[in-house]
Amino acid sequence: MKAELLTYTPLKTLKEEFPGLGWRELLPHLSYTIAIEKVSRACSHQLVRHRIASFSQQSQRYITVKRLDEKIVVPSSVDESNIGDYIGGIHAASESYQRLVDNGVPREDARFLLPNAVETSMLVTMDGKSLVHFLGLRTCNRAQWEIRTLADMILDQLRAVEPEIFTHAGPYCYQLGYCPEGRHTCGKMKEALERYGV
Amino acid sequence: MKAELLTYTPLKTLKEEFPGLGWRELLPHLSYTIAIEKVSRACSHQLVRHRIASFSQQSQRYITVKRLDEKIVVPSSVDESNIGDYIGGIHAASESYQRLVDNGVPREDARFLLPNAVETSMLVTMDGKSLVHFLGLRTCNRAQWEIRTLADMILDQLRAVEPEIFTHAGPYCYQLGYCPEGRHTCGKMKEALERYGV
Amino acid sequence: MKAELLTYTPLKTLKEEFPGLGWRELLPHLSYTIAIEKVSRACSHQLVRHRIASFSQQSQRYITVKRLDEKIVVPSSVDESNIGDYIGGIHAASESYQRLVDNGVPREDARFLLPNAVETSMLVTMDGKSLVHFLGLRTCNRAQWEIRTLADMILDQLRAVEPEIFTHAGPYCYQLGYCPEGRHTCGKMKEALERYGV
Amino acid sequence: MKAELLTYTPLKTLKEEFPGLGWRELLPHLSYTIAIEKVSRACSHQLVRHRIASFSQQSQRYITVKRLDEKIVVPSSVDESNIGDYIGGIHAASESYQRLVDNGVPREDARFLLPNAVETSMLVTMDGKSLVHFLGLRTCNRAQWEIRTLADMILDQLRAVEPEIFTHAGPYCYQLGYCPEGRHTCGKMKEALERYGV
Repeated sequence: MKAELLTYTPLKTLKEEFPGLGWRELLPHLSYTIAIEKVSRACSHQLVRHRIASFSQQSQRYITVKRLDEKIVVPSSVDESNIGDYIGGIHAASESYQRLVDNGVPREDARFLLPNAVETSMLVTMDGKSLVHFLGLRTCNRAQWEIRTLADMILDQLRAVEPEIFTHAGPYCYQLGYCPEGRHTCGKMKEALERYGV
Repeated sequence: MKAELLTYTPLKTLKEEFPGLGWRELLPHLSYTIAIEKVSRACSHQLVRHRIASFSQQSQRYITVKRLDEKIVVPSSVDESNIGDYIGGIHAASESYQRLVDNGVPREDARFLLPNAVETSMLVTMDGKSLVHFLGLRTCNRAQWEIRTLADMILDQLRAVEPEIFTHAGPYCYQLGYCPEGRHTCGKMKEALERYGV
Repeated sequence: MKAELLTYTPLKTLKEEFPGLGWRELLPHLSYTIAIEKVSRACSHQLVRHRIASFSQQSQRYITVKRLDEKIVVPSSVDESNIGDYIGGIHAASESYQRLVDNGVPREDARFLLPNAVETSMLVTMDGKSLVHFLGLRTCNRAQWEIRTLADMILDQLRAVEPEIFTHAGPYCYQLGYCPEGRHTCGKMKEALERYGV
Repeated sequence: MKAELLTYTPLKTLKEEFPGLGWRELLPHLSYTIAIEKVSRACSHQLVRHRIASFSQQSQRYITVKRLDEKIVVPSSVDESNIGDYIGGIHAASESYQRLVDNGVPREDARFLLPNAVETSMLVTMDGKSLVHFLGLRTCNRAQWEIRTLADMILDQLRAVEPEIFTHAGPYCYQLGYCPEGRHTCGKMKEALERYGV
């Protein structure tokens, strides 16, 4: 997985022009563009559900898929004892896919056999308000591990360049001072406050 | 695949209250809710890209997957000569998935082996303006076959209940009187006008 | 001021189809259309700031304005001692407006003299999630009185037809159990809980 | 009226990273922030109707209004023969407003007497796709003169810094090669093509 903050609106630029407005009021005017690489299609499916963002993603309709086992995401729960089964499943999918293509099935149909594990890349743009909301949901302990790792990676880069804003970002329990998940809470708010606190 | 128009705002209701407004002006005030069943995850990934809509979709994170071969979408390009390879690929994925789960890999990680072909269901709500735009893009000859079949199925139901609006809906070439795809045009506008014309 | 719930998606319809989904999950699929009459242009300017809604509003560009003093909103802080000044200001605006029109100034320019007090009407459509958010902000004690009166009027009608959902709606302090306004709090949360509680 | 492009995402930055994507595909990832000053409240009311944008606007609820006649917009159709009536109307509003405030009416209510002509300032942020759409509608001959002047002012600055994109922007007749206004057309498409062509 890789996430790179490509370009963003510096808070400083707008603060100089509007000294009366705080960073919270300026958030909707700040734009962040991030290049995301080597995340699974399972992860990209979750990402594009965030509606207040712009996404560009390579389509699987037309691409050529070769050596699938070099272009997949492997969850950390797949360890030595399971990796054989995991890679075996990927190989089988890869071979069936190739056989269909060789027999004349269009790539856009053969890709029905490709697994969620296949890597994809995306360009994502969000305004500051949506981004802080995204981080509130996705750095949460309850988020799925892949999108959570991605959110943490993005947060680290944002804190490095815009600490004034993003030291306030993190899971919602950290942003709000209480856990909004109710009975679904992970119960580890104290650890979260320590981890994200500065 | 199944698509059922569950509920919608009758145009008549608003026209009675606002006799001065035409259906085009009322479109943003009309709401349509559609239950979609048995489409592939490849299709649902495309669907949720339409941002001006509300989606509810069953997550694959927690569900139990059994007898995968009964719950998959088979493209029509997969015929007698290929179906063995196709089902073989699905079976292999299914078995690898099951072995991982049996060995203690969490379902949310094991699902990385599940193919795009796996069926999913969604509840979709769009306002009339977004829906006419969706139909303009997705009943187009250039749309991928699965989402196109879905869009046609939805259009048929809409024309049956609200002909005043939806006889005007169909691919953009039919809506606009020219093809906006430029050099990517399918070149079959005449056929499209005949098919969707009333 | 008048607000009338013209049409809405009954929760019951969707619950029957999706017994597994609660009203909170169904909120984004529910649509509410409300006709608003006799609010000031000051109020409509605030209303259209709510972006997740559809609005149709009569434009002042082309309309004929006559007897302006019959078509204005009078704040309750304007009492016997002030009403003369208030109406006087309206009359002066009305006369200047009419004189400009009589002298050939286009209506779309003459309307630059029309005051915020002038009445307007709107058709508003929101989904359930946006509506509960709108009510959270606008039934709050800190909201401007006109939009607050409007929000209360809308809430009353919604509670009458969909109590399962809208007994949970009201100012954010009532929805959340704490006041999110921080140091800007009105300090009257107890009264709010009593007023909106059921 | 004043409009100043404060900050924007340079197309170059994203093109270097994604040489395969053209400017049209990158438009949703580009962000433009513009400071707008000295437009009428009539104009700001129109502006905030563009939903795919972020706005920050000074509220009239709490501000002190003094010397109103120095802070108003005067349409060009108000010439020597009418300016007396125009300023007279503004003066009358100003005086009634002041008298109400002096008598203890809250400013948020006294402002009901303020005319549409009163100046306001805004900070607006749009992504590139929404901005090209905004320009398509608002540089059109049929747009109201004030928002059209504003749109032209914004377009000039955009063409100066990002000609690769914005030489393609202008009224929809210029963008599309035909007038989408149908029977409401201004009939001057040829002049528009000459004016905006490069």
